[in-house]
Amino acid sequence: MRPKDFFEDFQVGERLITPGRTITETDLVLFAAFTGDWHPLHTDAEYAKRTIFKERIAHGMLGLVVGSALAFRMGYDVVLPKSFIAFYGMDRVRFTAPIKIGDTIHLESEVAELREKNESMGIVISHNEIKNQRGETCISYTTRILCGRRPA
Amino acid sequence: MRPKDFFEDFQVGERLITPGRTITETDLVLFAAFTGDWHPLHTDAEYAKRTIFKERIAHGMLGLVVGSALAFRMGYDVVLPKSFIAFYGMDRVRFTAPIKIGDTIHLESEVAELREKNESMGIVISHNEIKNQRGETCISYTTRILCGRRPA
Amino acid sequence: MRPKDFFEDFQVGERLITPGRTITETDLVLFAAFTGDWHPLHTDAEYAKRTIFKERIAHGMLGLVVGSALAFRMGYDVVLPKSFIAFYGMDRVRFTAPIKIGDTIHLESEVAELREKNESMGIVISHNEIKNQRGETCISYTTRILCGRRPA
Amino acid sequence: MRPKDFFEDFQVGERLITPGRTITETDLVLFAAFTGDWHPLHTDAEYAKRTIFKERIAHGMLGLVVGSALAFRMGYDVVLPKSFIAFYGMDRVRFTAPIKIGDTIHLESEVAELREKNESMGIVISHNEIKNQRGETCISYTTRILCGRRPA
Amino acid sequence: MRPKDFFEDFQVGERLITPGRTITETDLVLFAAFTGDWHPLHTDAEYAKRTIFKERIAHGMLGLVVGSALAFRMGYDVVLPKSFIAFYGMDRVRFTAPIKIGDTIHLESEVAELREKNESMGIVISHNEIKNQRGETCISYTTRILCGRRPA
Amino acid sequence: MRPKDFFEDFQVGERLITPGRTITETDLVLFAAFTGDWHPLHTDAEYAKRTIFKERIAHGMLGLVVGSALAFRMGYDVVLPKSFIAFYGMDRVRFTAPIKIGDTIHLESEVAELREKNESMGIVISHNEIKNQRGETCISYTTRILCGRRPA
Repeated sequence: MRPKDFFEDFQVGERLITPGRTITETDLVLFAAFTGDWHPLHTDAEYAKRTIFKERIAHGMLGLVVGSALAFRMGYDVVLPKSFIAFYGMDRVRFTAPIKIGDTIHLESEVAELREKNESMGIVISHNEIKNQRGETCISYTTRILCGRRPA
Repeated sequence: MRPKDFFEDFQVGERLITPGRTITETDLVLFAAFTGDWHPLHTDAEYAKRTIFKERIAHGMLGLVVGSALAFRMGYDVVLPKSFIAFYGMDRVRFTAPIKIGDTIHLESEVAELREKNESMGIVISHNEIKNQRGETCISYTTRILCGRRPA
Repeated sequence: MRPKDFFEDFQVGERLITPGRTITETDLVLFAAFTGDWHPLHTDAEYAKRTIFKERIAHGMLGLVVGSALAFRMGYDVVLPKSFIAFYGMDRVRFTAPIKIGDTIHLESEVAELREKNESMGIVISHNEIKNQRGETCISYTTRILCGRRPA
Repeated sequence: MRPKDFFEDFQVGERLITPGRTITETDLVLFAAFTGDWHPLHTDAEYAKRTIFKERIAHGMLGLVVGSALAFRMGYDVVLPKSFIAFYGMDRVRFTAPIKIGDTIHLESEVAELREKNESMGIVISHNEIKNQRGETCISYTTRILCGRRPA
Repeated sequence: MRPKDFFEDFQVGERLITPGRTITETDLVLFAAFTGDWHPLHTDAEYAKRTIFKERIAHGMLGLVVGSALAFRMGYDVVLPKSFIAFYGMDRVRFTAPIKIGDTIHLESEVAELREKNESMGIVISHNEIKNQRGETCISYTTRILCGRRPA
Repeated sequence: MRPKDFFEDFQVGERLITPGRTITETDLVLFAAFTGDWHPLHTDAEYAKRTIFKERIAHGMLGLVVGSALAFRMGYDVVLPKSFIAFYGMDRVRFTAPIKIGDTIHLESEVAELREKNESMGIVISHNEIKNQRGETCISYTTRILCGRRPA
């Protein structure tokens, strides 16, 4: 994918696959610390052993913020066009498989829909999947960004 | 709100209001560092001065992970019943106002719907608003959690 | 234990047992970094191999601040009543067993003495033990907090 | 003070004054994160405004771990002799004045008592004061360390 | 500048100018913590007031590692060609102006020399300047990287 | 080596050998986060497996800032005399062997040359080697510091 200026520079079906990042024990501790969410499933090895996961797993939100930010490894203007106005939000965020310590995740993103809002703005809707090193989808979500249209 | 064991312990309309946390410059740096998202809107004061915000603002995702984790200040079993099975995900996550350095955010959450899935499981759907010290909603989102039903 | 308002809400013998937290290599590095105490016993694996511990161990102070803060997992007002005035301090802090990387610690606390200071204030004296996953006491200490008495 | 080998190298009345460290908002956030103690007095600026302190203050334990570790700025073997055996613990830890954001603390320590334990070991008892830039004592405590005696 | 595959893809005189990053008090604390260099010029506000700088300044090494890593904001393969073999090192690293809290730095880099090493490898020598928001050079240095040549 | 006041207190050939620090996975994550350099060679275990190193290695710059700061473990005034004026910079920084997770590095430094600049200042040039636990040099570099001369 290339850097973009306007809504018109996106194409439905365009895809982006990012480099990976290994999720470490350090990441679990840092995320627990930053958010204050020390749920024992993420931070108590003895407790985690007795769950169906058998070990500590990453917070779903950890996977989401680390995985989604991987998009920016491709360059900010590949993801957010120069005419970027606002990050509307996310829909259908689903946590579908656990991320374990040592797993390496990456992001696959695809432009799903281009919706003209009015003469000057458009909405880019993308579908995103955060996958592990075995290709399993751990988290999926849809994003909506608002950006400017190319002046006539 | 009280600690809960089963799906049946939730009531539609039940509300939770958390203590606050001031979002500091430190939080912006730590979140940029952790995720790798150093977009200049969050980390370059000179760039941010020239935007409509006039100053650096927090990443939307920072507000979401810090704000949503505030729920756990009330106790894990107030939010997640003992029979907790899975955090399905989030819907309609909307970033509606910026969080600036020095703003103090808290979470207000309300049980919106209780949906029986089958004889042994139910889904608790809550609506959540992350608000600042002036009562403005900065982020809103719906969560779905799956938990066990009380044995007959 | 329940949330408390006044000195009179405490009872001698009342006990609190917290969830656990696994002490990781990350915690040792973060605590060394934060305090500046990089003593090789905590941060140099080659040096530590040649000590009686055979491996790096956590700083005593790391165990103390992490272990004592676990009390707040029960809710601030379970530990500190609404009429909380001051944290006087600690007595007889003793480091009795090493905390190793991978150990999971929790806190057990018991109200040891209730001392009326005057008509409006009282002192709650608690005995605390930070234990590992094998139930061994790693650190013990007594705390004194000053709080308000219930108005007549 | 000079580096020490044995119990006999200490002298009652010997004093140590360390360089200072400014306690920053960053330190409050990092310590809250590391320990999980996000009490609003330390982390919620709106709440703190309404207390007698009028602003966020540092955790007592933050002051204790940062202040006590300043001793090591003088060199580990100035504080802990080469024959160091164990850090017994602390007594009469008292939090006597708040540490505010921007305060600069240092440690003053004095050897208070030298107690022969047996023919091969001795206990060094020191009195310590963590002071701010105005010379006010914020925290005081006594430490006991066990070390080896000089072979006859 | 564009992504590169081989030594031959570089041109003498080619330039790169990165986005900026504001150096915060948080960065000074984090770098002091990470490296263990708590020199009072960087971390003691009272001490720093009495120096010629009148305030705390960033460690030279902080500026160097943050500033040099800004190059990667342009994409790894813009800086390091696909045939990248090794980062030889740096020459003439000079700290020419202090970086203060609140300064925003960026990197300007220029390919200075292309030296064929043998038939299969070449050395790319670049001159780099880390500048503040007023265009003053705070740090300058030369880098040498070894990479592969385009197969004939 | 002893604390120093003036240029004249240094001697060519004087050497310093520091204690060690084990480089952990935590250090790699923290350095990647702080600088923003998440190159997969340092942070993606799957990618690193397929390189000649077979595993993640530390950033060269990580080794440099951690290793060089070890000098201060000996006391600031052993390295920087009381009359210290400026850290000129570094020359011939060479990254000669990788630092792997679990390696323990230390610094060996030797005064290489003493150059009188004028009647009031002199330049101390030192050669430095950052070595691992097997005695292999991972990084070498020369430093130049400017300091005051002893008044006649």
